[in-house]
Amino acid sequence: METLKPLILVSNDDGITAKGINELIKYIHPLGEIVVIAPDSARSGSGCALSVTLPVHYQLVHQESGLTIYKCTGTPSDCIKLARNVILTRKPDLVIGGINHGDNSATNVHYSGTMGIVIEGCLNRIPSIGFSLCNHLPDADFEPTCEYIRKIVRKVLEKGLPPLVCLNVNFPDTKEIKGIRICEQTDGHWEQEWDACTSQPGYYWLSGTFINSRPDNEKNDRWALSQGYVAITPTKVDITAYEFMDELSNMLCD
Amino acid sequence: METLKPLILVSNDDGITAKGINELIKYIHPLGEIVVIAPDSARSGSGCALSVTLPVHYQLVHQESGLTIYKCTGTPSDCIKLARNVILTRKPDLVIGGINHGDNSATNVHYSGTMGIVIEGCLNRIPSIGFSLCNHLPDADFEPTCEYIRKIVRKVLEKGLPPLVCLNVNFPDTKEIKGIRICEQTDGHWEQEWDACTSQPGYYWLSGTFINSRPDNEKNDRWALSQGYVAITPTKVDITAYEFMDELSNMLCD
Repeated sequence: METLKPLILVSNDDGITAKGINELIKYIHPLGEIVVIAPDSARSGSGCALSVTLPVHYQLVHQESGLTIYKCTGTPSDCIKLARNVILTRKPDLVIGGINHGDNSATNVHYSGTMGIVIEGCLNRIPSIGFSLCNHLPDADFEPTCEYIRKIVRKVLEKGLPPLVCLNVNFPDTKEIKGIRICEQTDGHWEQEWDACTSQPGYYWLSGTFINSRPDNEKNDRWALSQGYVAITPTKVDITAYEFMDELSNMLCD
Repeated sequence: METLKPLILVSNDDGITAKGINELIKYIHPLGEIVVIAPDSARSGSGCALSVTLPVHYQLVHQESGLTIYKCTGTPSDCIKLARNVILTRKPDLVIGGINHGDNSATNVHYSGTMGIVIEGCLNRIPSIGFSLCNHLPDADFEPTCEYIRKIVRKVLEKGLPPLVCLNVNFPDTKEIKGIRICEQTDGHWEQEWDACTSQPGYYWLSGTFINSRPDNEKNDRWALSQGYVAITPTKVDITAYEFMDELSNMLCD
C-alpha cells in the first residue's frame, strides 16, 4: 500500500502570480502533496483580515501530479479557511505562507497577510510556517532560500510544532546566508508613516521608517537579518498577557 | 493655567455611523478631549490590516467643545496611524476601539478590527483598550456597558498599562452585568465556516461555529461572558513564543 504523502497547504498575500509563491512551490514540491489556494491579486498588509461583507469565490487554475492550485477572491486567511472547510478532504500536515516579497520580522507580524495564513493554520492545530524575504521587488532572488526552506519544512514535518506556536521565518536579501538564528520579535514602531500624494491633495500613501527600540539586542530578528542570518521567530497565537492578570485584577476588581 | 484634559483617540471597525461608537463617544466625552477617526463604512473582520495598495483620505465631519470627529477611507489600523502621524499635535493618553457590535473574545482577537486599533495604539506605547458587546445587531443596547466603560477608562488614565500590554474588554449582552472578571483568551477554533450562496453557485459567505476547547475553564473569557461577567483579557503585542526558543534551536540549528 502506498504511503500518503504529507499534505502541504500553501497560500500567500502577494497573489497567485507572484514569483515568491511560485518559487516556493518548486522548492517544496518534492516534499509532499501540495495544495495551493492563494488570492487572485495582491493582498499585502492584510493581517488576519477576513471577508465579512462580501462572499468569496475560488477557482481551480492548475493540476498535475502532487500539485493542485486554486485562486480565490478572498483574503489570505479566507484561503486557509476555505481550504479546510470546503476544498480539502483531509487535514493538512503543514500550512505555509509565502514566500513573501518583503520583510515580516519585528512587529510587522501583526500586519502581515503571510503571517495571517500561518496564524490561521496554527489556530487550527496545524504546524504552520511563514517564509518572507527582505526584498519586496517582483523579481527578487529567492534561490538562496531554497535549501533553508527544504530543511525547515522537512524538520517541521518530522517533529511538528507545539500547539498554538508557529514560525515566522525571514530571510536576509543576500546570496550568502550565514545560517539560522532563533530570534525574538524585535520591539519597535513605525514613524513618518504617510506620504502626502502630490497629485491628489488630501490623500496619503502608507510609508514610514521602522524604529528598532533595541538595535543592539542580538536576540532580535532585525539584528539577525542585518547580520545575514535567517531569522526564525517562534510565534504564539495565545496572546494573553498572563503576567499582568493579578495586577489588573487589583486595579479593576473591587 | 488650565490643565490639559487627557487626549483620547477613538476608532472602530463598524464605521463612523454605527451606534456602538456613537454611544462610546457619549459615555467618555466627560472624561477627556475626544478625537475620533473611524472608517467611513463597515470594516468588520479587518484585523490589523493596512491600506497598502491604495492611498487613504480623511475628512472632518463634526467639531464641538472637546470632541472632533473625522471619517477615513482606510482600515481601523490606518485610522490610528493617520491620527498619530498626520492629524494630532500631541500623543494620545489613551486609544480606544469600539464599542464593537459583536464578540471579540477568544481567538477572535486576531480577526478583530477593534483589536487592530488597540494593537496599533499599544505598539506605539499608548495605553489602549478595545470594547466589544456580544450583540452584532445595529440597534444593540449598549447602555449597561456605560458605567463599566467609564470605570475602566478612568482607571487606565490614572494608572496606565504596562508597555506592550493592552486590554480586550468584552461585554455580555444583558441588562444585568454581574461584575468584572480578568480572563485568559479562550482557546478554540471555528468549524463549518462557510455557507454556500444558494443564489450564486460557487460563492461562499463566512459563517461558522466557535468550538471552545475548554468550555469548563472558568478562567477563560468565553466562560465569563456566558456567566454574565465583563471579560477583560489582558493582551500582549510581543507574541514571541519565548518558551519554545531552546527546543527550536535544538531542532533547527546544527
